[in-house]
Amino acid sequence: MDYLNILNEILRDVESIQNTGEVAVYIPELGNIDPNKLGIHLMTMEGEFFGVGQSNERFSIQSISKILSLSLALSLVGESLWRRVGVEPSGSAFNSLVQLEYEQGIPRNPCINAGAIVVCDILVSETENPKQALLDFIQSIVGNTDIGYNKKVAASEARTGYRNHALVNFMKSFGNIHNDIDEVLDLYFHLCAIEMSCNELAQSFSFLMNDGISPVTHQQIVTLQQSKRINSVMQMCGFYDEAGEFAFRTGLPGKSGVGGGIVAIHPNKFSIAVWSPRLNLKGNSFLGMKVLESFTNKTKLSIF
Amino acid sequence: MDYLNILNEILRDVESIQNTGEVAVYIPELGNIDPNKLGIHLMTMEGEFFGVGQSNERFSIQSISKILSLSLALSLVGESLWRRVGVEPSGSAFNSLVQLEYEQGIPRNPCINAGAIVVCDILVSETENPKQALLDFIQSIVGNTDIGYNKKVAASEARTGYRNHALVNFMKSFGNIHNDIDEVLDLYFHLCAIEMSCNELAQSFSFLMNDGISPVTHQQIVTLQQSKRINSVMQMCGFYDEAGEFAFRTGLPGKSGVGGGIVAIHPNKFSIAVWSPRLNLKGNSFLGMKVLESFTNKTKLSIF
Amino acid sequence: MDYLNILNEILRDVESIQNTGEVAVYIPELGNIDPNKLGIHLMTMEGEFFGVGQSNERFSIQSISKILSLSLALSLVGESLWRRVGVEPSGSAFNSLVQLEYEQGIPRNPCINAGAIVVCDILVSETENPKQALLDFIQSIVGNTDIGYNKKVAASEARTGYRNHALVNFMKSFGNIHNDIDEVLDLYFHLCAIEMSCNELAQSFSFLMNDGISPVTHQQIVTLQQSKRINSVMQMCGFYDEAGEFAFRTGLPGKSGVGGGIVAIHPNKFSIAVWSPRLNLKGNSFLGMKVLESFTNKTKLSIF
Amino acid sequence: MDYLNILNEILRDVESIQNTGEVAVYIPELGNIDPNKLGIHLMTMEGEFFGVGQSNERFSIQSISKILSLSLALSLVGESLWRRVGVEPSGSAFNSLVQLEYEQGIPRNPCINAGAIVVCDILVSETENPKQALLDFIQSIVGNTDIGYNKKVAASEARTGYRNHALVNFMKSFGNIHNDIDEVLDLYFHLCAIEMSCNELAQSFSFLMNDGISPVTHQQIVTLQQSKRINSVMQMCGFYDEAGEFAFRTGLPGKSGVGGGIVAIHPNKFSIAVWSPRLNLKGNSFLGMKVLESFTNKTKLSIF
Repeated sequence: MDYLNILNEILRDVESIQNTGEVAVYIPELGNIDPNKLGIHLMTMEGEFFGVGQSNERFSIQSISKILSLSLALSLVGESLWRRVGVEPSGSAFNSLVQLEYEQGIPRNPCINAGAIVVCDILVSETENPKQALLDFIQSIVGNTDIGYNKKVAASEARTGYRNHALVNFMKSFGNIHNDIDEVLDLYFHLCAIEMSCNELAQSFSFLMNDGISPVTHQQIVTLQQSKRINSVMQMCGFYDEAGEFAFRTGLPGKSGVGGGIVAIHPNKFSIAVWSPRLNLKGNSFLGMKVLESFTNKTKLSIF
Repeated sequence: MDYLNILNEILRDVESIQNTGEVAVYIPELGNIDPNKLGIHLMTMEGEFFGVGQSNERFSIQSISKILSLSLALSLVGESLWRRVGVEPSGSAFNSLVQLEYEQGIPRNPCINAGAIVVCDILVSETENPKQALLDFIQSIVGNTDIGYNKKVAASEARTGYRNHALVNFMKSFGNIHNDIDEVLDLYFHLCAIEMSCNELAQSFSFLMNDGISPVTHQQIVTLQQSKRINSVMQMCGFYDEAGEFAFRTGLPGKSGVGGGIVAIHPNKFSIAVWSPRLNLKGNSFLGMKVLESFTNKTKLSIF
Repeated sequence: MDYLNILNEILRDVESIQNTGEVAVYIPELGNIDPNKLGIHLMTMEGEFFGVGQSNERFSIQSISKILSLSLALSLVGESLWRRVGVEPSGSAFNSLVQLEYEQGIPRNPCINAGAIVVCDILVSETENPKQALLDFIQSIVGNTDIGYNKKVAASEARTGYRNHALVNFMKSFGNIHNDIDEVLDLYFHLCAIEMSCNELAQSFSFLMNDGISPVTHQQIVTLQQSKRINSVMQMCGFYDEAGEFAFRTGLPGKSGVGGGIVAIHPNKFSIAVWSPRLNLKGNSFLGMKVLESFTNKTKLSIF
Repeated sequence: MDYLNILNEILRDVESIQNTGEVAVYIPELGNIDPNKLGIHLMTMEGEFFGVGQSNERFSIQSISKILSLSLALSLVGESLWRRVGVEPSGSAFNSLVQLEYEQGIPRNPCINAGAIVVCDILVSETENPKQALLDFIQSIVGNTDIGYNKKVAASEARTGYRNHALVNFMKSFGNIHNDIDEVLDLYFHLCAIEMSCNELAQSFSFLMNDGISPVTHQQIVTLQQSKRINSVMQMCGFYDEAGEFAFRTGLPGKSGVGGGIVAIHPNKFSIAVWSPRLNLKGNSFLGMKVLESFTNKTKLSIF
């Protein structure tokens, strides 16, 4: 298939769509981004890669990194992780406290904030220096890299993170946070502050198209079964209260972030990342959703 | 792959599991079933089929039929259907009224009772004789057939269906039911009363592994895109509040019913149906869930 | 105290308030009312009475009658009634199904629709002809009377009552409705269709200012303790999700209806009824609330 | 009325009741209390007072103090307080976050934890030294006093107060907390740690039976209207999710605490405090509820 041609066609198509989305502004570092940025990077199982638009420009991947911290935690503690966080879609906003109350402090899944915070708590328990451990983990997937945290973003997240403070205290009241709250949140706010380009993003998720093995470094990152399960969790829970819509339109497991990034996986076929900062009302990239829908429509390569 | 051997192995394996499930008893016709029945039928894209256990014995497919009525309605009214029913997982019980209230009478998806009732309302609007139209539709997939309704089950459903009466009246109060309530519920209670064997069930869903075309009758049942979307809806919403768990363990789109049946699809690979009447606490077949998890573990054929 | 002067002063005062309320229009009979009607009737323990404005004109008392049916049911079955309906404020809309689901079909209180329907179910069980029994009961309080049902209102309620159909079916699914659904709802829709003037309304509630004895007919309507408890239920639950606001501003137990009527009681002091059809956003009479707040402010006669 | 005789009779009566309640144990200081303590103190408008049982022994008044901090805040900022906290009963547990989410950070009333924390935030804004200001305020009601905070209780509350941390952070995320979170919570945890005897408790609430004026010091504590409104808020919201039950059985505005204390007011008649540490399932003193129900039954002195 002539992927480059298809990607360029999509780029042209979406430029004519009126983008009614809005850039996230809850921290200044996101609000200052040029809203018209658009990049796509595709990486196939055959080892080909194709980038169009601003696919090599780094941006704040935000919640997308929740899948990377989950993968690291799973590789460390195995299936016992699922006693502290569920795998069911949430049916409500990413930072809701309501379901957490009904479910006694066990977050519904690792993609909502509460679940990602529990995963951070596990990393604080299991690693000497969790922030470094996470970067080392990414390096094990993509090889030599200078991927890192944007300290200003992490500081802004911390400054405005009252609701995340609420979540972690609430879970601590149920006994589902084991470490010092500030240490857990420090990791969480850094987790939200990783910067990557579409190119790097597609690579860093490539082990999930390849049965848990990085096609770049050839390291086994997670087991085959864990890889399948991470993909299923992305499918069910990766788009806040729009997971069904993404499955319906695009038909791929994936994860989005409020920085405007989305990454999606077709197991044994490809890993694709897209970036466009304006978000729809559900908090997912307005154009990113359309790019991926168009891609699977044109290629007929959805998993369904 | 030696499917027959694998299925027999699974049959042996699950016989040693202590089955803590309970047969549904809310209507006498379900409560009287021999709880130890167990059947599996697999149908592949290559035209092979394999049945083990009581795979040719008919049982009440119950909610599984919601996907067939959805497919018929989609083939009749197209994508406009999605203005009246959503595609998001519900995060609550199959007959909950709570979310329906927050979402102003638009059911979250066509797999919860409320959504299936809206689909029935569409069939009442669009067909002369909806009960017959549904049977004709099934015949167009599986060829000559005597598949039909169990009148006693339909009558029992009607007798105990106060909560479904509540749902339909509630949606009518929001304007999302267009026809006479009794006519809509009559169709719905019959929809819940279809009887099939695992063999017939796997066949009747086979168009969903084959891009919308029945591999039996070679008729185009729904479009390629509709087929993908129906699969995505099954993936996200097919197992009540256990959809994430099924995706996580089995990794296939599927649909279960309280009669103990489950059907699952691997697009372009196979359609599989299993039947075991005892249900787990979430209302899905206790052994059926284990059979399908084991099948995708042994064959490594999940979509993730 | 010069009550007549105070009432006239209030009438003048409220005429200068901009009434941002809206007349209920869900049935034509309410929508056709002159929205500028305003009447007040005060009846004291000393046997005095004072009417100003359209205090002798009948209107649809709607939900206000729920206290009369409750009183009749209590006089028939005693405290066992409270096993089927609670006494806690609801914290949500009058016709919500949400709490009913969490609380397994036991309505929070007899002032929300679900609770009033359970009370109707009790009256259907306990009386030969419940519609006549209710009118006879009112007659036992106010003496000879031609108070009756507006058949057109009852028919309109029935025609648009899908949500009440939903409520009764939902409770039947929990076993908290014992009689035929249509018979229960027929009584309920008539209950909502009683017409009284402010004068009659103040009289019909006068037993609640007098320890359960009608000061008009001198009959014991309910026991002293029941009278106190009915007043407490009105205080806690009489104004939908605005019960706290009414207690806060007016400081009297009372009950409102979407016809624009409100009745309030000061035990051992007075019974007062007011009517003004335009409703505030919570469904209570916009001016009625202000009239009663002003009355207790001017007279300093709140129970707090 | 021979109040002393009545109180002694009640004391005898309740001693024969099997007390199925449990002492609160979430902090050691409460768990260590002798569960069989029982005291009652009555103070009348005529200046009489009657104490029976351990009515002069101090205990942790816990949430009862929320009415004193509310009264102080009202006296400082007036009715503008009600823009930041509501007056409606909550219909859920005292520390629920659910309603707070639906209502965008505005607590339903000042008796739930969230509301009391907002009141603390106001006191931090309005007073130099809020902890001292609160003690001074109590002194202005009861005269010379050594009433104070139990520092160990305050420290224990702080140590286990994750859910309160969750609440305050959650409200800060909605902008309804203006001061430093730790400062606000420090005041809140001290507020929960005030110790009084039944005698002192009845006195400290006596301004609420006397139109806002302390009958002890003759100071105007709050205005007449504020006094009535505080009483109405106690009536509607003073007993967590059992406010309706207390109104129904006892018929007085009041407030309870998990230390086993309850205070209740009959405007222009009396102030009464009772203490018995074992709590019922809703968190209110098991015997305290029965004592007050019996008292208003025997004296027929409820406000309804």
